[in-house]
Amino acid sequence: MKYVSFTTADGKAGFGRLNGETITDLTATAADLKTAINDGTLASLESDATLALSDVTLAPVIPNPGKVFCVGHNYESHRQETGRAATDHPSIFVRFADSLSAHEQPIVMPKVSTQLDFEGELAVIIGKGGRYISEDDAMSHVAGYACFNDASVRDWQWHSRQFTPGKNFPTTGPFGPYMVTPDEAGDLSEVNVTTRLNDNIVQQQPIGDMIFPIATVIAYISSFTPLKSGDVIASGTPGGVGAKRNPPLWMKPGDTVTVEIGPMGTLVNTISAE
Amino acid sequence: MKYVSFTTADGKAGFGRLNGETITDLTATAADLKTAINDGTLASLESDATLALSDVTLAPVIPNPGKVFCVGHNYESHRQETGRAATDHPSIFVRFADSLSAHEQPIVMPKVSTQLDFEGELAVIIGKGGRYISEDDAMSHVAGYACFNDASVRDWQWHSRQFTPGKNFPTTGPFGPYMVTPDEAGDLSEVNVTTRLNDNIVQQQPIGDMIFPIATVIAYISSFTPLKSGDVIASGTPGGVGAKRNPPLWMKPGDTVTVEIGPMGTLVNTISAE
Repeated sequence: MKYVSFTTADGKAGFGRLNGETITDLTATAADLKTAINDGTLASLESDATLALSDVTLAPVIPNPGKVFCVGHNYESHRQETGRAATDHPSIFVRFADSLSAHEQPIVMPKVSTQLDFEGELAVIIGKGGRYISEDDAMSHVAGYACFNDASVRDWQWHSRQFTPGKNFPTTGPFGPYMVTPDEAGDLSEVNVTTRLNDNIVQQQPIGDMIFPIATVIAYISSFTPLKSGDVIASGTPGGVGAKRNPPLWMKPGDTVTVEIGPMGTLVNTISAE
Repeated sequence: MKYVSFTTADGKAGFGRLNGETITDLTATAADLKTAINDGTLASLESDATLALSDVTLAPVIPNPGKVFCVGHNYESHRQETGRAATDHPSIFVRFADSLSAHEQPIVMPKVSTQLDFEGELAVIIGKGGRYISEDDAMSHVAGYACFNDASVRDWQWHSRQFTPGKNFPTTGPFGPYMVTPDEAGDLSEVNVTTRLNDNIVQQQPIGDMIFPIATVIAYISSFTPLKSGDVIASGTPGGVGAKRNPPLWMKPGDTVTVEIGPMGTLVNTISAE
């Protein structure tokens, strides 16, 4: 099943189940999608109210996650192009929730930067929370998946070794269009993460190529911090980022960037100037 | 003036103004200290209700900050002992709010680590929020200051270049005992940050030695992410950390660690085993 968070034409936040072009409006059943996931009732929620997908503005899949983790250098192709040493553990950095954006919302290029880059990724949304989750049990803690663009302000990312500044400018974390539950997503190992800039494929690699698989990442993160329902893990980007091309390929106002991941559909964003 | 957040004996969260050993209980005037700061009314809040400091359990000064930033290598003595290159901008990493702890609460040494270190720091609490705050205007965005111990799980911190894992284990961010407003804190340039482990001074350096002063850090952070009332900036630690001693000096269960900063008082914590 697919789930969306949205804002209606009269400005109300809501969420629902997506069936083609129609949304079963579940807004009355729980405070928000994160809460419904936490309640463990998502699959059984029903409502007679429907909305046309075209009548709402999509929000980030989870608009209010407690924690957003990103995994650095989690595909060998990207690790090699960045020249980073291999590590025995995933590299984890943090996005604040207010850096997230939604399908068809503009990514605002900061006025203080000239180096806006794309990073197509698979986002994992946590279902049941926990601490010290075992790798064997980790996949049972996944509520679903979505496309993510970990858009990166490279000049700010490289101010020091800590990535925080370059990964937290507002609107630089598009996340959507919808969450797909694991049963519907199926086996993802052969599914490509494909990033396009103005229709040119700039990144494309199967999810099975991750250095640290999703279960390993969940187990690792939950060792140092508790995971809760609705937490998000952007699981890393394949090789091909603009910064490591010669010459570099930066996104600029007017560009369109998309992230397509098989059953998770296609996340589309345009770049605008601040 | 001094402010505290606390839990009463019957388990209710509250906040108030501290006068010696007595708290003017302001719990009824706003949802919490962060909200009162955001309302801009903190200085004028009054109440006839009082509590004895000894009758409450102190909470982190701000128990629920939206964002907690830490500045890496912000004293030359610490930068040199870590062997890090000088940077033109502050190095910023992130703590989740659930890693914070309070005065007299135990720092729990994770069962998965043997390398728990101290980092005494001055915490800055944001008053009025903003984006693109100028350095000239930055100090008017400070609600107050407190002691902070950016206790670090070094083996996990060094799993990759990103500090996230080593800085987010629960209870590793003691923050208190109270917030002191800027007028009462006065000029901090000559005030020492002093860290003691079992009564031995292990770090001691004046705040004026920071590489990037508080105003610079606030302006920098607000360039890439919006600041809000109650956000916290742990402004960096002086040289002397246990990891860079020969042999290394790790904290262990039963130890007592304190951070003393002039008008901000002394933050006391013991180490316990998980």
